[in-house]
This record gives sequence, structure tokens and C-alpha cells, in this order.
Amino acid sequence: MREKELISTIKQTLNSKYIGDDCAYLKDLGIVITQDSLVEDIHFKLEYTDAYKLGYKSAMVNISDICASGAEPAYMTVALSIPKNIDNIFVENFYKGLKDASKGIEIVGGDITGSDKLFISVTAIGKTAGRKISSRSNAQIGQAIIVSGEHGNSAEGLKKLLKNEPCPEKFLNAHLMPEAERKLSRLIAENIKEPYAMMDTSDGLADALSQIANSSGVKLCVSYDKIPHDECVDKETVLFGGEDYKLTATVPKSILPLLDDVSVIGTVEKGLGVELDGLLFTGNDIDEKIFNHFKG
Amino acid sequence: MREKELISTIKQTLNSKYIGDDCAYLKDLGIVITQDSLVEDIHFKLEYTDAYKLGYKSAMVNISDICASGAEPAYMTVALSIPKNIDNIFVENFYKGLKDASKGIEIVGGDITGSDKLFISVTAIGKTAGRKISSRSNAQIGQAIIVSGEHGNSAEGLKKLLKNEPCPEKFLNAHLMPEAERKLSRLIAENIKEPYAMMDTSDGLADALSQIANSSGVKLCVSYDKIPHDECVDKETVLFGGEDYKLTATVPKSILPLLDDVSVIGTVEKGLGVELDGLLFTGNDIDEKIFNHFKG
Repeated sequence: MREKELISTIKQTLNSKYIGDDCAYLKDLGIVITQDSLVEDIHFKLEYTDAYKLGYKSAMVNISDICASGAEPAYMTVALSIPKNIDNIFVENFYKGLKDASKGIEIVGGDITGSDKLFISVTAIGKTAGRKISSRSNAQIGQAIIVSGEHGNSAEGLKKLLKNEPCPEKFLNAHLMPEAERKLSRLIAENIKEPYAMMDTSDGLADALSQIANSSGVKLCVSYDKIPHDECVDKETVLFGGEDYKLTATVPKSILPLLDDVSVIGTVEKGLGVELDGLLFTGNDIDEKIFNHFKG
Repeated sequence: MREKELISTIKQTLNSKYIGDDCAYLKDLGIVITQDSLVEDIHFKLEYTDAYKLGYKSAMVNISDICASGAEPAYMTVALSIPKNIDNIFVENFYKGLKDASKGIEIVGGDITGSDKLFISVTAIGKTAGRKISSRSNAQIGQAIIVSGEHGNSAEGLKKLLKNEPCPEKFLNAHLMPEAERKLSRLIAENIKEPYAMMDTSDGLADALSQIANSSGVKLCVSYDKIPHDECVDKETVLFGGEDYKLTATVPKSILPLLDDVSVIGTVEKGLGVELDGLLFTGNDIDEKIFNHFKG
């Protein structure tokens, strides 16, 4: 919870209208921009990944933020700080992974410095021309709540890695080499007419739903059974496991026939909070409350 | 020299036309973009600075890169990674410093994460409308070589801090709270008609001159006596001390009457390398050669 407190301090100090969504929408320039960092031993451990996969994921988590806004990922800059024992081969493989994740995106700059631990900070820019840009505060009553993909796979992969258990490829890839939902994002943002909310599930599905409900001042009514997930993955992991980089959005029902491979998990209603299988959770800590409820 | 080797690896892997200048010029968007990081115990030590000054400098080094391109600094994102012992007050003061350095610039996003040491990575965007954008490969034969401000003051301040010697305010401020040359950059970029080279002196004046000479394929003839510096600061520090964040540029003589407070230190001539007081230095390591020459 410390992160939330710090973000509130930063918001107060800066008093900026831009801080709120994962991407800032700079209308005068026709772009969105996002910056996300990955820190060794906080966000990843080198014993579970390699330079190529790390580069791939570093790019993808930022591409996913751009996709959540509805913009087209276009440019990227990369700051890399490396300890002395990291060699040229590592840097080369890191950038190969970064490049392979960034199809159609130009990596245009950044810097490289020394450090005690690996530190990666990527900035991504998306173009907004021809797109309707989302905001987590834009959910409209009557819209369908949709999600893409399966939920909890990345966290399941991480769990098995940490326990040193054999791990099906599907979960391992979900964790180490996630894929952002570029096609779905484009389909929605190019075709939607009305305001809509869209987020990626980098911090988990329950978190995304809570943020949308509170920012938009609406009630999101969701059925757990409608959330696609692997049958091996438990409810807690499906709802709270982060880093799946799937999308959740609130969209008009009229757009649904255009969208492949999405699941409707509920509806936006009048009220406030997240109603999961008939149980209503409200407040600034909806996801914590849902979590505690299911933990018993 | 390891940084140069790594940058060459990155350039080869990415094969991008954008990597070269401190800012990447994205013509389709009408912007330049730059990203620079400051790492604790590599770029700064907390015993010599404080949260406010650190925020101020983190913004200013990126603003300076935008100024070196000739663009107008407009937006910034900030990634901050902090150890557990850093409190809310530190974060608040850091962002106050950042904000005070960023007059007329909107801080629009970023992220905050945990880490073992403080890590700061700032991305800045500049607008190019109405400006002619520089490149270090654009120096033209016959242009005057100009510099702003005094050189070596920041390194002199750092030297005194490290030796725990009493330090005049001027040197201390140059090191801890540098000022980017926003006004001079604007004057040049709004009025110049022909291609020109401009860099900030973040890595020292000799380095900037070497980069411009080699990238442009010209000879920069410079008189040491023309380089403004405090009489307390020795020749080595004036030429090689970094982090002054002054500008050096090659401009047509016709523009000089418009520019206040700049010094003409030489001329761009046919040939290759940097000629300092009649001594010619060439190759990929011009600044190293000049350094070794003066060290005797």
C-alpha cells in the first residue's frame, strides 16, 4: 500500500491533471506517453529469466500500457543501468529481445549507465490519430465489461518458478514473455464512438476493475464464472495475480460482434464499487476487501 | 570507455537512424525526446545533496538535452525507485525540486517503485514548431564556434565537495543546481536559417567539441584563451570537467549580434578533428588525446 500513499504525495505536489491513467494523453501532440521501470530483485530475478526475455518483457509492459489507452505504439526510449559483471553479450541479447517485442515500433534513444543492480526504465509513445483514447474514468452505465485472454497465468508461472516446481510452458511464457493485446486495442479504439474505460491487468484483474469503478463513479457487476482462466489456477490467483497484460474494458454492446476472443464478464451499472457474484465491495481499497473476503 | 563500447553494441543491434544525438528528433510528431538516468553512488551521493536539489538537477539535465536540440521543453515523465528508508517527505521535496526546475513544462506521469539504491530516470519531450533543430553532425565550414557561460565550475564544485574543502557558492550551485540554457537555445533555434551543431557540455567541453568534429567531418579550431572560465579553475577542469550544462554550438556569424552572453572560441574549418591553440587532435578518442597531452 506504500505505493498508493507515495503516488498521492506526488499528485498533491505536482497538482497535474495528467497523473491518473497509466498513459498521459498529450492532445496537442496527438500522442500518449508512459514510462515503466523494472528493477532487479524487485520485479525480476536473473536466475529465473535471461537477457533476451528481460528485454522482451521490458518493452512489452510499456507497449501494453499504450494499448490500454487505445493508441498505436510508435516509439520507445530505453534507460539501462548495469552492474560491472554484465557483459556486452548480455546487453546485445537484451536489446534483441527489446527489438523483437517492438514490431513496428522504433527504439529511438535512451542511455546506459553503471549501477549496483540491473535497472531498466522504458518510455513508450503511442499515436492517437484515428483512435478514440480510453480513460479509467470513462466507464458508462449500460456498457458491457469485457476481458481478453486467461487470467492468473502469469502469477501461476511465477508461483511455480519460486517453488522450483515443474511449470507448464503456458504459465512460464505468460510470466516471462507476455504479449500485449495490440490487435484488440486497435479494433476497439478505431471503432468505438462513445467514451470508454480500458486498462491492462498488470496489477491484476480485481485491481483494474476497482480502479475503473472508483475513477468512473459506477458499479461494475461481474460474474466470476465468466472470467476465462485455466482450471488449474485458483480463484485468488485469477482475481489478484498481476502481470498478465490482458485488457479489461467497458464497451457498448454494439461493438461486441467486431471483437474476437473477448469474454463479457459483466455490466456497468448505476451505483459505486465492484459487485462480484452479488457481493458488493466499495471504498478506496476495493481490491483489498475482495482479497480479504476470499481469504476468509 | 566502456560506455562507448556498449553504445556501439546497442547501435548495431538496433540499427536505428535515431541513435546518435542526445535527443531523437521524431519529425512526424513534431517533437524531440530524450531520456537520462541518475543513479545513487554513480551520479550522486546523498551526503552531498538533498531531495530538493536532486529533483531539480534530475529535471535540469534532461531540459538541457532538449535545449541542445533547439526544441522547446514541454513535457516530462519521471521514474523514481527508492529504498525503504526514503520517506514521504523526501519524495515530496524531490518532486518540489523537479517542479521548480520545470517552469512551463508539464510533468505528466511516470512511476515509483522500490529498489536498493535511489534510481531516477527522466524522459523529456520538446516541441519543434518554429524551431530549427540541431544535430552534432551539422557543423558547417565557416561557422563560428560559440559557448555560453563559464566552464569547469561544476567539476570544481564536485572536487571541493569530495575533498571536504570550503566551496564558493558559485561552484556548489553549478554542481548541485545547474541551469539549462533555455533562453539561448530558443534565440538560436528561432532565428537560425542554416544547419548547425549544438550540444550541451554535460560530458565536458572537449568531449562536445570532439563529438561535433567527428560527426560533422570538420575541423574545429579553438583558442583556449577565449573559453570563459573562473581564474581559480585549472585548464584540465575547464576542458574536461562535465556537468556544466552550458551550450556549445557552431553558428553563422550573422546571428552573433542577436546572442547575449556567448563567447566565440573559434571557427569551423576544412579538415578533421579539434585544433586547440594550433595543436591538432584527431581520431575516435580526440578528447582522450587532448587530455593525455595536457597531463603531459
